[in-house]
Amino acid sequence: MPKVVVDVMPKPEILDPQGKAVLGALPRLGFSGVTDVRQGKRFELELDTVDDAVLGEVEKMAETLLSNPVIENYTVRVEA
Amino acid sequence: MPKVVVDVMPKPEILDPQGKAVLGALPRLGFSGVTDVRQGKRFELELDTVDDAVLGEVEKMAETLLSNPVIENYTVRVEA
Repeated sequence: MPKVVVDVMPKPEILDPQGKAVLGALPRLGFSGVTDVRQGKRFELELDTVDDAVLGEVEKMAETLLSNPVIENYTVRVEA
Repeated sequence: MPKVVVDVMPKPEILDPQGKAVLGALPRLGFSGVTDVRQGKRFELELDTVDDAVLGEVEKMAETLLSNPVIENYTVRVEA
């Protein structure tokens, strides 16, 4: 079954409190060397078929339902 | 700056209410052909350097902080 992945991340200029919380916790757990953390959402969609028309539909889904285009960017890709 | 991506998804056998909510909303928005939706988290980590030792550390971060190994699976990969 073909799978399409939609990754939704906060826009670079948008404050990412969840990412900052993770970044702040890492040293307390003994981890170092991480300069920034951004946290977003990952959607895995299983579809009947995957072709250009379907990918166009997934773009619309990402734009209207899966992301908030004002504060988030999204990418759509097919994963084997 | 090298970037490491950690994807955290619910284990297949675990109920994914968020994914089910998205799956249920798609037909109401006029979309069809999607047989399943799973929703998880995506972390983008910026690091000073990326080598095998650092990737080993990121695996530990994923195991202890970024995911709940009881109900979630994670993958770690370097993204250009």
